Amino acid sequence: MSGKLYGVGTGPGDPELLTLKAVRTIQSADVVAFFAKRGNASNARAIAAAHFRPGQIEEALDYPVTTEIHRHHDDYKSQIGGFYDEAAARIAAHLDAGRTVAVLSEGDPLLYGSYMHLHVRLAPRYDTEVIAGITAMSGSWSHAGLPLVQGDDILTILPGTLDQFDLVRRLGDSEGAVIMKLGRNLPKVRAALAEAGRLDHAVYVERGTMANGFSMKLTDKESDSAPYFSLILVPGWSTRP
Amino acid sequence: MSGKLYGVGTGPGDPELLTLKAVRTIQSADVVAFFAKRGNASNARAIAAAHFRPGQIEEALDYPVTTEIHRHHDDYKSQIGGFYDEAAARIAAHLDAGRTVAVLSEGDPLLYGSYMHLHVRLAPRYDTEVIAGITAMSGSWSHAGLPLVQGDDILTILPGTLDQFDLVRRLGDSEGAVIMKLGRNLPKVRAALAEAGRLDHAVYVERGTMANGFSMKLTDKESDSAPYFSLILVPGWSTRP
Repeated sequence: MSGKLYGVGTGPGDPELLTLKAVRTIQSADVVAFFAKRGNASNARAIAAAHFRPGQIEEALDYPVTTEIHRHHDDYKSQIGGFYDEAAARIAAHLDAGRTVAVLSEGDPLLYGSYMHLHVRLAPRYDTEVIAGITAMSGSWSHAGLPLVQGDDILTILPGTLDQFDLVRRLGDSEGAVIMKLGRNLPKVRAALAEAGRLDHAVYVERGTMANGFSMKLTDKESDSAPYFSLILVPGWSTRP
Repeated sequence: MSGKLYGVGTGPGDPELLTLKAVRTIQSADVVAFFAKRGNASNARAIAAAHFRPGQIEEALDYPVTTEIHRHHDDYKSQIGGFYDEAAARIAAHLDAGRTVAVLSEGDPLLYGSYMHLHVRLAPRYDTEVIAGITAMSGSWSHAGLPLVQGDDILTILPGTLDQFDLVRRLGDSEGAVIMKLGRNLPKVRAALAEAGRLDHAVYVERGTMANGFSMKLTDKESDSAPYFSLILVPGWSTRP
């Protein structure tokens, strides 16, 4: 009989933001698998490692490429597609041997998560369960203590990679917004927020739930450098009873 | 010295989706507060009650009105505003007496949560910490095993109360979408999804993380009745390596 596949959300960084269900699943799994950039430690493993069992099998799934090649380039697509196929085959071998496999996924597994690539390859063939995780967004607005949206507010999640015109249009068309993938896009995002009249209430959050995390009004941030684990929050809620 | 205020996300229903941090905070608080509709048991309390300590003070915050009066009506606004003021005063009295207070909030406290109304009234005056929770959305797409968005996909959270024209426009302008507040709006939402060409991939989820929850393709759902704890997911992710 085949083993069961679990996609386990580890939350955004603080090990205490693991759910009880994630902890129980990690503790009881025969195999724990996690993604990492080749040559780097896995963030997901670091969040969950306190709950690993001695003797548990670990499967490190190391990305062959991340940002060195543009993700719309054919080389990237073929390398990364081959990597996911191989990773799925490694997990499938454990499942075929009757082992339970917990695949760790930072944040929430099915929201911009690496686990999704294994899920689409394996869920049609194996008994599968996904355990929701705290998203980086939730971790960030909680850390900042920023009420985001209420009532009938619309919330839009935007990548900072959009062009400025599109960012302005969408920021003017949504009560609340979260802008991810800042990096080198921050100057453009800042200009779009100003043009949309949303700059004054925008909040910048860096490493929201990690020990060295912080948040500040975007207008107070002088530098235009922003690491990968940063995002901008635009609160929608203004009228209140 | 004043006590500390915690806004504690309880997640969407499954008590195992509480985070370790939520459990620790609930266990150690002097006072646990929770919202409920008058005459009903509190859902948030039910999710967390296994972690209450004997002798802990409980503060039930019972809504005087919920859906009996339209929320844009002046009577609703004044009744509900007065209720939040009173609830904040009750919590403040505990904080002034040096007691730690954990205010439970279903889902995530700062995303469409009742706790937000206490937060804006109390956080400026008291030491406050917000503990992120699993949202109903995450619980729902995890239950359905539905990969929602990936890469640079845009995700839009929409209330079913929008008019059909606006729903169609926005569904055509976002890779992924979540439609909440279905209820009597389901026929209109269904028509908008069809007009936007998104009906075939839409998934209906009812009580996503509760024992009696289920999900199905919206096109397989014959009835147009949808309870409050239901939503529609429109996945954005289509191309994959």
